[in-house]
Amino acid sequence: MTEKILLEHGSGGRLSHHLIASLFFKYFNNPVLNQNGDSALLNSIDNPAFTTDSYVVDPIFFPGGNIGKLAVCGTVNDLAATGAVPLYLSAGFIIEEGLPFAELEEIVKTMAEEAEKAGVKIVTGDTKVVNRGQCDKIFINTSGIGTIGPGKQNISAGTMIRPGDSILINGFIGDHGIAVMGKRESLQFGSDVLSDCASLHHISKNLVDRVDVHFMRDATRGGLATVLTGISEQYGLGIEIEEDKVPVRDSIRGLCELFGFDPLYVANEGKMVVVVPPEQEQSALDIIRSNEHGEAGSVIGRITGDHPGKVIMHTTIGGKRFVDMLTGEQLPRIC
Amino acid sequence: MTEKILLEHGSGGRLSHHLIASLFFKYFNNPVLNQNGDSALLNSIDNPAFTTDSYVVDPIFFPGGNIGKLAVCGTVNDLAATGAVPLYLSAGFIIEEGLPFAELEEIVKTMAEEAEKAGVKIVTGDTKVVNRGQCDKIFINTSGIGTIGPGKQNISAGTMIRPGDSILINGFIGDHGIAVMGKRESLQFGSDVLSDCASLHHISKNLVDRVDVHFMRDATRGGLATVLTGISEQYGLGIEIEEDKVPVRDSIRGLCELFGFDPLYVANEGKMVVVVPPEQEQSALDIIRSNEHGEAGSVIGRITGDHPGKVIMHTTIGGKRFVDMLTGEQLPRIC
Repeated sequence: MTEKILLEHGSGGRLSHHLIASLFFKYFNNPVLNQNGDSALLNSIDNPAFTTDSYVVDPIFFPGGNIGKLAVCGTVNDLAATGAVPLYLSAGFIIEEGLPFAELEEIVKTMAEEAEKAGVKIVTGDTKVVNRGQCDKIFINTSGIGTIGPGKQNISAGTMIRPGDSILINGFIGDHGIAVMGKRESLQFGSDVLSDCASLHHISKNLVDRVDVHFMRDATRGGLATVLTGISEQYGLGIEIEEDKVPVRDSIRGLCELFGFDPLYVANEGKMVVVVPPEQEQSALDIIRSNEHGEAGSVIGRITGDHPGKVIMHTTIGGKRFVDMLTGEQLPRIC
Repeated sequence: MTEKILLEHGSGGRLSHHLIASLFFKYFNNPVLNQNGDSALLNSIDNPAFTTDSYVVDPIFFPGGNIGKLAVCGTVNDLAATGAVPLYLSAGFIIEEGLPFAELEEIVKTMAEEAEKAGVKIVTGDTKVVNRGQCDKIFINTSGIGTIGPGKQNISAGTMIRPGDSILINGFIGDHGIAVMGKRESLQFGSDVLSDCASLHHISKNLVDRVDVHFMRDATRGGLATVLTGISEQYGLGIEIEEDKVPVRDSIRGLCELFGFDPLYVANEGKMVVVVPPEQEQSALDIIRSNEHGEAGSVIGRITGDHPGKVIMHTTIGGKRFVDMLTGEQLPRIC
């Protein structure tokens, strides 16, 4: 194997075959992938959920993860938010000529480990190599297929949300965005500034099985604010949240102040916003907190029939603040 | 709508929502997409086939198509090659800041038209925007789901190929690669040099329903030679083809000679290699030729138990030539 990725690795010819065999088949190894056809043949799926995401994070390695971990967790979470059990992933790589082979191997290895943890199989893939300068190191697309129980609705669509419902989140916000930004700018932060990148399918499965979930969505690009304003505007509902209930680490809050970011808008990669009826709020919180990725889970606010289309935050100092949809782009290539 | 794509179109915030509503929902409009959740919820699927491909073709508009047409046809053909009926596609866009909105709209419109022709729905998507210079105009990933009848095997896997089987192709080779290269180099060719980019699901469906297909694969990157050498090496089979039976347009042959390409290795985007038992060769040829994308269909050779692992071409002038797997990369970013 060469030390760097060459254009020829994407030619479809001998070096492509070698790369596929020595890297992708080695790490992603499973019987479906090993069929080695133009498509993977899967067992029949009841009520499939289908999603796609391209990952372009810069830098590709950051505290708490890398682009490969993100590509698996992000798509697993999009399935989980629908209430689906994730089953299969595809992996499409666009690689810049010259990427060190060792970096690609590290990314692929991480993807395989995360897929194992999430109980999903990477069953089909594609590799393109573009000339130096035509992409930035590596972009990865993962598409995912999961299954939803019969008769279940699409929980991430939001049509079941009702005024009075409670809004929960499974922990600290802003970690991913600040960790990536810090690495990008070569800043030295404390050791607790790590991406929260994680697969949340266990939390979502337990919630869906045991409480009446009205809505779930993972709060990634645009942060918590984007999920809340999205619900509010799309369904003409009001939302009220309590600033002191929204978990933000002191380190992240301090860095956000320093760099002029609002943690509400900073990207997460392991945070799920969950809406449940008020009488199930405590059960949902217990389920969330019992998970390794939910220990700092919190009820952050509620849905209201008042001020439809508007999100209001009751601030720590006793004021009120409108939370608007993100305008502008504070941190491109965060995921 | 702004005239050019901005970083903010990929932020997940207000401009992202606007782009999704005014472009993707407008053109891809269908009830599954319109659920607007983190994943699309599909009806249960018997024996699904699942595939992915990223498209990075340069230039993004070329004679006979554009990157959007390619992104639909290419993935439809990967499903078709498995013997599946294509059902659903995802669409993941990575866009360079500054891409004219009109170009993106043209691409999306073409995707919608091709999806309609192929009978597939684009049900889920994702958009990322990267800074100028961090990708080249636009890359598109499409992943696809199809369905294969119960008890059917993965035809593109090749395990059913037997010595004596006939090898067919549905028409002229090399058109796509030469059309793209000509446009890239701003060369003026005759009006018949057009990409062959097309969805071949009708041909594949008719073949699978009516003859005993032992193998299908679309001959894209690396051309016909790459499919044949792949079969030959992977299954330890010999292959013999007749040069004068392999359809190549005079214009393409001439241009290949001029530029030093071998048409056997030049990319196609609407050519399927089909292997059937010898006694069904004529039926298969009739099915292929009755399709609008198969009028120049031809039986090009056969599988043999002799010289396992080797592809031999009987040349027009009466000689023999070994056809080897592509080494090097003659035309990067061809698809």
